Amino acid sequence: MSVIDKDNLTGYKEKSAELLRKQHVAVGDTITIKTSENEFTGILMPRYESADKNHIVIKLRSGYNIGIGTEKVRSIAKLTDPTREVPDAPATKIMTFVDSFKQVSKEFKINQSINQNDRSKEHPKIALLGTGGTIASKVDYRTGGVSAALSASEIYASVPELENYASIEPEVLLNEYSENLKPADWTIITDKIKEKITLGKYQGIIVSHGTDTMHYTAAALSFALQNLPIPVVLVGAQRSSDRPSSDAALNLIGATIFAVKSELTGVFVSMHATTSDDVIACHLGTRVRKNHTSRRDAFESIVGVPIALIRGEVLEMQLEQTGLKLKKRNNNTNGLVVRPDFDRRAVLLKYYPGFNPEFISHAVAAGYKAIILEGTGLGHVSKDCFPQIRNAVESGTLIFMTSQCIWGRTRMTVYETGRDLLDIGVIPLSDMMAETATVKAMWALANSKDAKSATKLMQENIANEISMSIPI
Amino acid sequence: MSVIDKDNLTGYKEKSAELLRKQHVAVGDTITIKTSENEFTGILMPRYESADKNHIVIKLRSGYNIGIGTEKVRSIAKLTDPTREVPDAPATKIMTFVDSFKQVSKEFKINQSINQNDRSKEHPKIALLGTGGTIASKVDYRTGGVSAALSASEIYASVPELENYASIEPEVLLNEYSENLKPADWTIITDKIKEKITLGKYQGIIVSHGTDTMHYTAAALSFALQNLPIPVVLVGAQRSSDRPSSDAALNLIGATIFAVKSELTGVFVSMHATTSDDVIACHLGTRVRKNHTSRRDAFESIVGVPIALIRGEVLEMQLEQTGLKLKKRNNNTNGLVVRPDFDRRAVLLKYYPGFNPEFISHAVAAGYKAIILEGTGLGHVSKDCFPQIRNAVESGTLIFMTSQCIWGRTRMTVYETGRDLLDIGVIPLSDMMAETATVKAMWALANSKDAKSATKLMQENIANEISMSIPI
Repeated sequence: MSVIDKDNLTGYKEKSAELLRKQHVAVGDTITIKTSENEFTGILMPRYESADKNHIVIKLRSGYNIGIGTEKVRSIAKLTDPTREVPDAPATKIMTFVDSFKQVSKEFKINQSINQNDRSKEHPKIALLGTGGTIASKVDYRTGGVSAALSASEIYASVPELENYASIEPEVLLNEYSENLKPADWTIITDKIKEKITLGKYQGIIVSHGTDTMHYTAAALSFALQNLPIPVVLVGAQRSSDRPSSDAALNLIGATIFAVKSELTGVFVSMHATTSDDVIACHLGTRVRKNHTSRRDAFESIVGVPIALIRGEVLEMQLEQTGLKLKKRNNNTNGLVVRPDFDRRAVLLKYYPGFNPEFISHAVAAGYKAIILEGTGLGHVSKDCFPQIRNAVESGTLIFMTSQCIWGRTRMTVYETGRDLLDIGVIPLSDMMAETATVKAMWALANSKDAKSATKLMQENIANEISMSIPI
Repeated sequence: MSVIDKDNLTGYKEKSAELLRKQHVAVGDTITIKTSENEFTGILMPRYESADKNHIVIKLRSGYNIGIGTEKVRSIAKLTDPTREVPDAPATKIMTFVDSFKQVSKEFKINQSINQNDRSKEHPKIALLGTGGTIASKVDYRTGGVSAALSASEIYASVPELENYASIEPEVLLNEYSENLKPADWTIITDKIKEKITLGKYQGIIVSHGTDTMHYTAAALSFALQNLPIPVVLVGAQRSSDRPSSDAALNLIGATIFAVKSELTGVFVSMHATTSDDVIACHLGTRVRKNHTSRRDAFESIVGVPIALIRGEVLEMQLEQTGLKLKKRNNNTNGLVVRPDFDRRAVLLKYYPGFNPEFISHAVAAGYKAIILEGTGLGHVSKDCFPQIRNAVESGTLIFMTSQCIWGRTRMTVYETGRDLLDIGVIPLSDMMAETATVKAMWALANSKDAKSATKLMQENIANEISMSIPI
């Protein structure tokens, strides 16, 4: 039983707090704010402790949040009595999105039901696996920051538009910020996706995920789950759902549209394509990178363009422009190949001037079986590293070369340094991204009987991670 | 005494070799090739052993190379007797660009002299320091690849247009591919620049450099040389001068125009702004990155836009759009502050899922004084690393946080992980690039009496490497 705190104005200060207090409004109340130009109705959201004091944030019925400058506010009116009971919700002072959704539905008589049985008759089924991250986060009142907390069903409830596209069956699998996820978690996610696919009733799988390492997980799933009959779409948010202009809802809608409508299968990442709320991009799991710390369009396809764009409800496929080949979705759940294991004895070392080659020797001594060098330019490191690399190769450690340039590809035959490294036994990885190469090496080590077969796996194009048609 | 080899058709094969042999043409000859549409006159260039067999490459009088498809060739005519002596050149079968330039000048009666005394009366003086790299490379006949060899004066001779802008005084300082350059080389370059500036006769300094680590050197010089009275411009080439469509000449012209005309001073990198030969970009030394392995526009400004664009001879300043502040050039050579030392006890560690925090402990045990973490997103690493980071901090090792996202900035107060890391004592570096931070840490360690003053230097904005106006 949850009761809204009548005096709760968490995060509001000075002018904004004053305006709200005057109308006896508290966080969780449904209010109408009029400005000289517009009228907004929605639920008053809590704010960060450190948020600016000149905005009032309400959650609109669309699921979006909007921040209204206090100087623009002409009037604030509370629509209903904020004191009410929400059955079956845990006792908490924080109003969850399930609460908000139920409240909005009830008060505005929206003809939307969160009863999944009703939806399942009409729409394709999607499994939504929650793993944590900003997309599943809310304000932490202790610190004023954001922490992972919302369940997958809460996410679902907070984005009622999803009902238009799919019947979503959520399940909380993990609840971690993605920087804390480990290769063992990739195995857990792989196994759960396998379980869901084997049921044979889903049109696609969506994995909600923290953005920090979402591209690493996307690469991991691309190798661990081969011959996928249906698409697996990872989705995150750069701004938590309770912040103004959160990207959570639209990213999830984009992921759902792709998961339902795409004719192609594989592992993808669905995020904003631009900083405005108009286009979502679907990137290939092995060719995507988080290239901005905070922008909503932080994720970029490293191979040309994204696989698809979603504008409104329209899915625009761009596969041909990428030059890549993907399989079509099918009903053959038996064809699914699952190789969920990862061996952590692969290490990524980024080269820079002054890099001490002793780190290579240390990795060998520490028992690492593969070293992924993030070299400069076309795939170089200083000749000072040659003796340590030679020793590593002779001891049976695999040395793979990628480039820290991010775009382009290693080409180790052009310069002396590259040719010398090839002679020593360094294995070039063409245009495989350093991040993808590191994940793949962990996977290849766990799925090979010896170094030779691991090398073969690394050089083989399994999930469009490497363009073998272009000379190494 | 160098004699052109009459039969030298290095790199030419099948159809192309056949066409050339028929006309008794050898590498180094001046020839005219007619196609159905055009007529090209220039010096026949050697080709890579592995180059395609369907093109003939000539060096035009403009300094550019052009490749002409054998299927388009209507006729080939040799203009002069290829046998001639070039005094004072080392005995070699490879025709250098000095040779080509002298030859072109002589044969076409170009009214251009490479006698520097003539030019010095008319034009501002520029010191050109050669350090090696592709911009100073030519074909290695043994291997068919490219190796560093041309001297600064040879580069100069190969780009006669430079005479229009400046009197260039070249000096070979180093001859290394930039992946082999070490922090000690940054000191050598710094000292030489100081020596040149102290002479008081130059309008600017140009440093020709391999592209692989040019941005690291640019950052290093930005800290080692403060209060520069004149601009220092690093310049490289993505394709060697003897290849068709080499970018060497145009980059050098762009660097020269900037060095002569710019009202601003500081350390810059001058490279192609696009893939076509029309615009050169000047990037700030602390905010530039090689983001493509091979494209001519590989270098990108990480802070908004480049400081300047050079279109033809026109210098377009863009400083205002970047929001940065730079000093104006001046005559106060005494104001120059030179701090040329770097301490290699700083290590860059890139985080990824599965990263073993034991590498942090190892760096501490190995005597490193600063660890630059290239974290995920806003500046995170797994909580599994907390104990090792805590131990490192307690032992007096400085732990700095940057982001592998490249664009954006660390903001460690937003999420629990960031706040916990701050509590442990990790020092956030805002929008300082990981590469710049690593270089700066080496410099700060060498120029501080203790950890506290090194930390202060790291957080201080010295060369626009950090935007302190934005909350960390």
